[in-house]
Order: sequence, then C-alpha cells, then structure tokens
Amino acid sequence: MPLSSLPIRIVLVATSHPGNIGAAARAMKNMGLTQLHLVAPQQFPDPEASARAAGADDLLTHAVVHNTLLEAVSDCGLVIATSARQRHIPFVPYEPREGAAMAINKANEGNTVAWVFGAERTGLTNVELAQCGMLVTIPTSEQYSSLNLAMAVQIIVYELSLAARKIAVPQGSDEPLATQLEMNQFYEHLQQVLSGTGFRDHTADGHLMARVRRLFNRTQVDQNEVRILRGILSALEGARQHNSEGKA
Amino acid sequence: MPLSSLPIRIVLVATSHPGNIGAAARAMKNMGLTQLHLVAPQQFPDPEASARAAGADDLLTHAVVHNTLLEAVSDCGLVIATSARQRHIPFVPYEPREGAAMAINKANEGNTVAWVFGAERTGLTNVELAQCGMLVTIPTSEQYSSLNLAMAVQIIVYELSLAARKIAVPQGSDEPLATQLEMNQFYEHLQQVLSGTGFRDHTADGHLMARVRRLFNRTQVDQNEVRILRGILSALEGARQHNSEGKA
Repeated sequence: MPLSSLPIRIVLVATSHPGNIGAAARAMKNMGLTQLHLVAPQQFPDPEASARAAGADDLLTHAVVHNTLLEAVSDCGLVIATSARQRHIPFVPYEPREGAAMAINKANEGNTVAWVFGAERTGLTNVELAQCGMLVTIPTSEQYSSLNLAMAVQIIVYELSLAARKIAVPQGSDEPLATQLEMNQFYEHLQQVLSGTGFRDHTADGHLMARVRRLFNRTQVDQNEVRILRGILSALEGARQHNSEGKA
Repeated sequence: MPLSSLPIRIVLVATSHPGNIGAAARAMKNMGLTQLHLVAPQQFPDPEASARAAGADDLLTHAVVHNTLLEAVSDCGLVIATSARQRHIPFVPYEPREGAAMAINKANEGNTVAWVFGAERTGLTNVELAQCGMLVTIPTSEQYSSLNLAMAVQIIVYELSLAARKIAVPQGSDEPLATQLEMNQFYEHLQQVLSGTGFRDHTADGHLMARVRRLFNRTQVDQNEVRILRGILSALEGARQHNSEGKA
C-alpha cells in the first residue's frame, strides 16, 4: 500500500520555531505523508511556517492542533518516540530503519501509528516518553549530535517511504541493454581495428582484450551505446583504409 | 574506518540560498562529515549561512570555494550526482543506499569521493551530470517531488553514516580509480583521434562525446584501465601517421 494511504501521522510536540513546522510539512509531503499533528506549538499558524512549507501548505491548513500529547495519540495503536539523546530510561532505542519497518507493518494491519518529535531544545520529556511504545534514536556524530528538528523528521519520513516501498528495484534506462552477441561483435571489431594498427599488448599479464572486456562488461552498455562504439570503430577503419588507398 | 576519517566531500553547485549552505553544513557535521566544497555559490560567506549552520560554522570557515565543478572534482576517483528529476539520459539512477555503499567502499580503498548537489531550482545541468560517474535519485512522492537542498544533503549524509558503520572491510579492486583529470585527458585524446578520421556525429541529439563520457563515467575506470585505453588511442594515432608517412 502506498505511504499516502497508510494511517501514519507525524506529531510535533511543543515546537518553538514555526519555520521547523513548515519544513517538516514539506519533508512529509515530499515522501507522501500528509497527516500532521501539533501539540501546543508556540507559534502557529505563522507566515514563517507557510514560507518554509513551500508547496506543502495544505498540510499546515489541515494540521490538527492538540493541547496534550495524550490527546494527539489516544487513538493510535503504535506510538514511536524520536530521541537523539541517551536517557536513563528502560527503553531499548531502535534504529530509524527498524522503527520504520515496524510502523509500516502495524499501519498495514490497520493500526493508526504516531511518530512523535519533541521540542527543539529539550526533546521529549520523560512523561511524554512514557506515553510512547517504542524509542527510535537517529545515530549522529558524538561530537555534534544536535540534529535540527525538521531534519530529523526528514530522515524518519524518508525511512518510512523506503519501508513502504520495501526498496524498489533501481530503474534503468529505457534503451534495452546490448546483448552478449552484440558485445562480442563489438569486441571482435575492436580486435580487428587494433590488429590493423599493429598494436602490441603491453599489459602485465598479456591479456589486454580480457581487461577491456571486463571494463565494458561492468558498465552494462545499452544498444544505442554499442551502436556509437561500432560507429567509432568503423570511422577509424575507414580513415585508415582511405589513407592507405589514397596514398597508394 | 569512521566517516570523519574518510576522503568524502560534499559539493554544492551554484547554491542560491546561503541558508541552505549553512543547513547542509550542520547536516554534514551531525553525521560526522566535514569537507564542504562550494562551486560558484551566489552568496557566500553570508550571515544566514552561519545562522543556519548553528554549531557547524567551522565547516563554513574551512569550505573550499571553486569556480567550476570540474575544479571541485578533478582529484576525485568517484563523483556521484544527486538528481531528483528523471532525465532523458542513459544513466541508471541508484538509490541513496546503494550510492552510499559504493562511496564508502571506494573511500575505504583510498579514493577521494565527491557527492554533488545542483542548484535549488534547476538541479545539475546536463554538462555537470556528464562529469559525474554515478547518478543517485532520492525517491520522492510523484505529487510533490521538490526536496529542499539541505534536506537532500541530510538524507545522503545519513545514508553515508549508516554505510560507514556497516562496511568495515574494503572491497573491490586494489588499483586506484582514474582521477577526473585523467579521464578528461582520455576524452580529449579520443576526440583528437576521432577528429583525425573525419568521424561524423550521427547521434539523434548530436552529443556523441557526451554519451561516450557517460558510458565511461558509469563504469569507474581504474588507473590501469585508463592507461590501456590511452595506449589503444596512441596505437591508432601512430598507425594512421605511419600509414600517411609510409606512403608519402
């Protein structure tokens, strides 16, 4: 099921900077999420939020504002807390990727899922953490761990979108790949042109053509490209014959 | 090896908004990356960049500013382009995760790696893309795909930090990759040999050399291979000259 159809909401608690709310909305919409819930935001609505949201201001218009975190998550089956900091609490922190897989599984089963982010400077309080069933920590450099709030949202919604797709196969070009037959014809043609020049194989192992083949094999040459390569070889051949004949 | 010790740089090309440069620096430092390179930024240095960098303004102080992308990547063995948009080019776009794994592998082998991001509104031009060996597309919602520049950087450096933690053992060839400078010398040599044959460009879009560059860029040619390719070109040149002189 696409992420946009799953019951997953992002909950921002006690956000200080409206710009972060806007940037978080944009990050969500980029990844196909639309349900934004705000708990006691310091300034909202706000022109700075709308500016940073860019084309995602519809998420701000439809954002649900609550007084407490409990109110924002009371209908949720799974509540995931994000915390960048280690705390002395009996939670096992998960990786974003593990949390995202859990969120997508639960949402696919029909549960409403909330992913919760605390205030910029303080994060989630222990009382707020206690209302969450799972803790996710985004791994950061030990020297500089203070991740911007909207950036943290971006990483999480990115992981949610990947988990929803289960990592699709990379897409190739529309042009079909050259067949092995076509590639062999190219290698033969190259060999022929090289023989014509009296080219000597100076590679350490004396297997120059094998190395050239490996080079081209790695790259998955498409049909258009093999035509270009053959065209170059024909031009080189033609020029040599022309030279030879012309001077004869 | 920790990410902070690896030769990986982030290259921002023609950035319009200094705030994005600052936010990108913060995202980098959060994940343990420090080498920021800027190609022709519109406004830099700038107070807005410093403000958004928060505690990462040391990256801005040490940022290297270049006039051209070529200058910023000429010493790099692997150059990865980020593009959010589908283009009609025969590149196979990779997932951020795949690109990050490749970057960490190559950096572990001692190659300098550049990860390149284009201007906010336009992304990388086709000329700039042609200087990159690998294209990574961050998957986004089809309805709203315009990812903020600093957010894109955040996702990539997050993936790099995950990949650095996972990949302990370097893989692949021991031979260092050809630098962009060496590859450019190869393309110039090829162009020169082709010009000598009177070769005509019959590709639909008339950009044969651009297509040849993309083909070789994709394959990550190593230093031994580029020597073989140059040797072939020299043989072709020598044979033609020999023919001409011999028959005169």
